[in-house]
Amino acid sequence: MLLLKNCRFIVTQNDKREVLEHQDILIQDNQIVKIGKADEKCPAIDCSDMLIMPGLINLHTHTCTNLLRGISDDLPLKDWLEKKVWPAERKIKDVYYGSLLTALESVKAGTTTFCDHSFGIERVAEAAETIGIRAFLSYCMLDLFDKNKIKEELKITKDLIPKLKNRELITQAIGIHAPNTCSEDLLKAGASLANELNMLNFIHILETKPEAEFIKKKTGKGVIDYLNSINFLNKNTIGIHLCWLNETKDYAKTGASAVHCPVSNLKLASGARLPVPELLKFKTNVSLGTDSNASNNNQDIFEEMKATGLLHKYSLNDSTVMPTQAILDMATRNAAEILRLKTGRIEKNFLADIIGIPINQPKFFPAKKETIISHIIYSSNGSDVELSIINGKVIMKNKQIKNEKTHLKSINDYFTKVKPF
Amino acid sequence: MLLLKNCRFIVTQNDKREVLEHQDILIQDNQIVKIGKADEKCPAIDCSDMLIMPGLINLHTHTCTNLLRGISDDLPLKDWLEKKVWPAERKIKDVYYGSLLTALESVKAGTTTFCDHSFGIERVAEAAETIGIRAFLSYCMLDLFDKNKIKEELKITKDLIPKLKNRELITQAIGIHAPNTCSEDLLKAGASLANELNMLNFIHILETKPEAEFIKKKTGKGVIDYLNSINFLNKNTIGIHLCWLNETKDYAKTGASAVHCPVSNLKLASGARLPVPELLKFKTNVSLGTDSNASNNNQDIFEEMKATGLLHKYSLNDSTVMPTQAILDMATRNAAEILRLKTGRIEKNFLADIIGIPINQPKFFPAKKETIISHIIYSSNGSDVELSIINGKVIMKNKQIKNEKTHLKSINDYFTKVKPF
Repeated sequence: MLLLKNCRFIVTQNDKREVLEHQDILIQDNQIVKIGKADEKCPAIDCSDMLIMPGLINLHTHTCTNLLRGISDDLPLKDWLEKKVWPAERKIKDVYYGSLLTALESVKAGTTTFCDHSFGIERVAEAAETIGIRAFLSYCMLDLFDKNKIKEELKITKDLIPKLKNRELITQAIGIHAPNTCSEDLLKAGASLANELNMLNFIHILETKPEAEFIKKKTGKGVIDYLNSINFLNKNTIGIHLCWLNETKDYAKTGASAVHCPVSNLKLASGARLPVPELLKFKTNVSLGTDSNASNNNQDIFEEMKATGLLHKYSLNDSTVMPTQAILDMATRNAAEILRLKTGRIEKNFLADIIGIPINQPKFFPAKKETIISHIIYSSNGSDVELSIINGKVIMKNKQIKNEKTHLKSINDYFTKVKPF
Repeated sequence: MLLLKNCRFIVTQNDKREVLEHQDILIQDNQIVKIGKADEKCPAIDCSDMLIMPGLINLHTHTCTNLLRGISDDLPLKDWLEKKVWPAERKIKDVYYGSLLTALESVKAGTTTFCDHSFGIERVAEAAETIGIRAFLSYCMLDLFDKNKIKEELKITKDLIPKLKNRELITQAIGIHAPNTCSEDLLKAGASLANELNMLNFIHILETKPEAEFIKKKTGKGVIDYLNSINFLNKNTIGIHLCWLNETKDYAKTGASAVHCPVSNLKLASGARLPVPELLKFKTNVSLGTDSNASNNNQDIFEEMKATGLLHKYSLNDSTVMPTQAILDMATRNAAEILRLKTGRIEKNFLADIIGIPINQPKFFPAKKETIISHIIYSSNGSDVELSIINGKVIMKNKQIKNEKTHLKSINDYFTKVKPF
């Protein structure tokens, strides 16, 4: 058992969106078992100066690319990919170290679950478990319209099934690169496999305008029409980016979810924004992702939350869109719903994925019940997080993660050996 | 004397934009006197794990409004001002506490100079000196076209002159609210006074479209044309916001500078962006500001730097605009040039306004000479800063400011007494 004692604020994210003051949280095994006053004799953490809230959920990153921070700003997209990211990425044969970095910096920034779209998935799983972070892992299938590759890609995905099952922190998902890089057969096979296994199916959709133009030329259809014509989109689908989505109603009807990566989309000048307020009206579940360090350049969901507020207010010329509570929901309870995970709230019987921020600081003044949600969205960032509990275990306390220096050294040793750039 | 020993990186921001490794910085009185290897016997700070860089400069805030954080998100601009900000602001008779908060959170976020556009300026000066931060202070003159007010407003400004002169950290400037809230006579008198005293002249210009429409209706001219017709704009002028600036060339010709407040403009849905890349082409000196906590909601110039990169890449649909080095220049050496202050660089004989960030962290991996500028713009935020030296004095070390808790208590006592909201 573990007791979070006398929490200054608890942002519960329960159905009533209660913010509690001066209450305790009791954790047993990996669950929250009591909120209120708890007198159990067990190890306790004094939270009298802490804002306690659900850990954030990052729906989209590429651990394979996360070693490439700072290599390639300010380039046209084509040069960014072809001259910088891909050549460097090819030198990274073992994704363990990029994944370890992702796990470390995610925990440090208040993220308790990340979703990876990558390769070398077994090693990603090892890295996540080494740190103790929850992870949804999808091998990113890609055939570039080569019929011979389809079987191979599906085999890699299927081979992972026995390896990843029954691991407490790890969940497997299907991953497909994008409609403009994968054949219709691979898209169909991937979606079928997801349906058959009842797995989530992560795919980049409409990140750029050339994707829309390519599909139009190839099929005569818009991308969403095309995907619907092959029965690709359904409640298992998690569409990532969707900057150029126009058919919001058609997309919403399918029951698919969406992942918004505002910082990456802005930085790469993807040219448009995922219409979040519009999709929310149609009850699509929209959540947040950082994308990789090569296009962001960090793994900080607090920044994505602030960017979400700013981007849509600016683009729609309306300061009332994307209210703070809706943004926080996207990064916590709604993200958990997409992942079918009983987390994202501080509530009895929910998984104990919890973070803490010391609130008695100039930047959070005035810290009152009615300003706390605003402070989370508009005044905080990942570096403010001091405490992280994942699956009931203390993963970070006083900003320290166990063996952090040793891990950083191993990452640095690998980086120095392979010299990706 | 003070020695910053064995700095892991020094981002000098000198003319060659050198990034030095494993060098020392020697400070005497308020100046940098040596960079290289120094063996002087004097108090030293071990910087072997630190990125050392010039302190950031915040060209625009309102300390009077900085107590109002988190009071008013997601509102239409009119309601934001009339229903929330103004009624709360009216209850704050003594701006000392808001200014103290500004000084504290600015230092914590790596800012070593802030520029205030406010009232109660003597008390702002006291607060800045209490913490030890450099400050440019302008009483914000406003007549709402009432001829009787002009004399009064000018008197308040002039009365400050003897009070603020010869104070090491404090510089007075002229402040005018905006072209659509001040009479032509006040605008003329303010600009004349600035010219006569060779003072800088801060003014909001073109934050919103209604301002452009109002001036068009009143004068038949665009705002820049109107200001030029009364000889308002010159090398003393610092125009703030300028979201709706179309006449970039005309503005640039005047020699006036510009302050970009991207986060505030986005959050308030000001509807357009200051055309930074375009103004830079015409050699206008453009720098950064946070605006007040009521519209941001923090005092973090690192965030403004990242927002500047993202906003212009997105809006111009071009990932190559606003390169990282140009953004860092805006917040350091170029800002110092606007303020006619020998700071903003780590260079011999420059003022010792210096900050330090521990660089051996997951979020800054890989920390290499060629990635460091990128990390400052796209991976850092104010909460990463641990060390702040202003005017040669250590103001923050290990994230601790002297008497911080006592100051926060006095701010809280005042807030509780006046209950602004």
